[in-house]
Amino acid sequence: MAEAPIKFGILGCANIARKLSRAIRLSPNSELYAIGSRSVERAAKFAKDNGFPDSAKVYGSYDAVLDDPEVDAVYMPLPTSLHVKWAVLAAGKKKHLLLEKPVALNVAELDLILEACESAGVQIMDATMWMHHPRTAKMEEFLFDSSRFGELKFVHSSFSFAADKNFLENDIRVKPDLDALGALGDAGWYCIRAILWAADYRLPKSVVSLGGTVLNSAGVIIACGASMEWDDGKTATFHCSFTANMTMDATVVGTNGVLRVNDFVIPYEENRASFLSAAEKPGIDENLQEWEPVPAEETVVATESPQEALMVSEFSRLVGNIKFRGASPEKRWPELSRKTQVVLDAVKASIDNSDQVIEC
Amino acid sequence: MAEAPIKFGILGCANIARKLSRAIRLSPNSELYAIGSRSVERAAKFAKDNGFPDSAKVYGSYDAVLDDPEVDAVYMPLPTSLHVKWAVLAAGKKKHLLLEKPVALNVAELDLILEACESAGVQIMDATMWMHHPRTAKMEEFLFDSSRFGELKFVHSSFSFAADKNFLENDIRVKPDLDALGALGDAGWYCIRAILWAADYRLPKSVVSLGGTVLNSAGVIIACGASMEWDDGKTATFHCSFTANMTMDATVVGTNGVLRVNDFVIPYEENRASFLSAAEKPGIDENLQEWEPVPAEETVVATESPQEALMVSEFSRLVGNIKFRGASPEKRWPELSRKTQVVLDAVKASIDNSDQVIEC
Repeated sequence: MAEAPIKFGILGCANIARKLSRAIRLSPNSELYAIGSRSVERAAKFAKDNGFPDSAKVYGSYDAVLDDPEVDAVYMPLPTSLHVKWAVLAAGKKKHLLLEKPVALNVAELDLILEACESAGVQIMDATMWMHHPRTAKMEEFLFDSSRFGELKFVHSSFSFAADKNFLENDIRVKPDLDALGALGDAGWYCIRAILWAADYRLPKSVVSLGGTVLNSAGVIIACGASMEWDDGKTATFHCSFTANMTMDATVVGTNGVLRVNDFVIPYEENRASFLSAAEKPGIDENLQEWEPVPAEETVVATESPQEALMVSEFSRLVGNIKFRGASPEKRWPELSRKTQVVLDAVKASIDNSDQVIEC
Repeated sequence: MAEAPIKFGILGCANIARKLSRAIRLSPNSELYAIGSRSVERAAKFAKDNGFPDSAKVYGSYDAVLDDPEVDAVYMPLPTSLHVKWAVLAAGKKKHLLLEKPVALNVAELDLILEACESAGVQIMDATMWMHHPRTAKMEEFLFDSSRFGELKFVHSSFSFAADKNFLENDIRVKPDLDALGALGDAGWYCIRAILWAADYRLPKSVVSLGGTVLNSAGVIIACGASMEWDDGKTATFHCSFTANMTMDATVVGTNGVLRVNDFVIPYEENRASFLSAAEKPGIDENLQEWEPVPAEETVVATESPQEALMVSEFSRLVGNIKFRGASPEKRWPELSRKTQVVLDAVKASIDNSDQVIEC
């Protein structure tokens, strides 16, 4: 490439940062430039274990990363409760921001982050990786083809995994002072995003949490679900949980077609992913015996890069447009983050108010 | 067979009766013996078109079928609003009863039917065909294997089809005086049964309809959904519709396993059916990259007889036990009918009361 790659600084040594370090390495327009941790030893070990170049900067604080003028962009996998502080600081230092999800504890905090980014003219994108998989674009072709899919009527999404005892006692995602949104923020984020994606990002008119929310002893959500309704009559449900076996499902039902995907968050295989689409109106013959047609068509999408590397490349492309060509930040990404957070807040409000219906 | 086959009389020439006529023909312990319609010409044509033997009785009324002392059992595909009258009359004439679903407009009507059957000592079974497919038994082996599936946490089921204009204007399932439960009674019945089946027939403690219920101009349900909650924290949702493309899905999520089936109501193929089960706890490696294991295992179940013929054979077997060996009616089937109707009534009550939570 003629242009220098975008230099990333990573704040903290979270597990997910291992995956993103690899993604930055795999992304041709991106460079692993710096890592900061409260412990410089941890930072050094992280850099060594995750393929940082010898020239990479290893810092003993987050501030040091933000103060490095060479850092173009920050990847921030900190606990959600720390996002507003560090994201606003990063934006203030003109760092572009790749922010882990959930992006904030609530819309009010997110708006502080978004305002800081807008005022600094920096790009913000949340790290919802599946948005960048070529399968997602392929599924969109189907969903937004009115003859094949028709009008959206119903979506169901589910993201669950059976966390072990150690996770349920010690992970940041079960701690009220760290990731206070629990399973809703971690797993539910993806379900809500998938539902909004299928609804072409139109917000529902109302949201209601479903009975059976499970809280841990500290009051953090371990499992919950919600239902949504739009003005035009379409509806959606989701379920998310830390205590049920793995699901990463989205079923999207239109008047003419159905789309099913069972691994939308992280494809089972890195280099290929599939989905089932039924773009016919199947029926049974007049004796109600034979299906015509059998409604199953699997589309397989191959990709040379994992979705997280594609995400990083797209983020760096946008940053490069700003840095080298004076472009403005792409507004689509903060808009999607905010819409997801608006619905997430509504679900949380419904849970906190005895499953009351919340208008969006 | 040493014993004479069970002689069936069919009340009415509904479309679904074509499928059941074939099922009775295919069932070795069952005989197509009589057909009754309000029009004897229609009855004669139906008998001719559906492989009735020349010796079959063709009647111009339902009463004539019930008055024929040779008729052992009645298959009743009448509109739901007529069930209570004709089922009670049939039981009074000591006819065993294979009753189309939904079995009644509400539990009060169903209880009149069940009391009449019990008092007459006749078998009653509802015509929920998928219960009798060998795939269902195979799925049960998985669901009730505590090491492979674990504890049930969540079920989602959906049954929808895109009805055409003629159906939406003229079918009995959109008419308040015929099948007043609309899509809830027709499609929702299967979802509720699937959920109860997965929950080992334990009733939920509460049911709430989801926003977005669609009614036609006569007030009949065209699309709706509901959520359920059990005392032990498991939850379920379903969606049913006459205006979305075909789905017949059940996803059953336990602590250790997941079961998925996309054609549970009527298998796409008559002689084989499959389901996906994941009986491992998949995880991703510490770099959050590689799946281990990839959670997909498809089980294919072959069957020589279609599920409706297996249903008829099981019904006739129970009737034969009563007729030839003095057995008592099998109570499991009316119990399952009643539990399904109890939940269906709760969904209807919630819809009729602005999505209020209804205790079961």
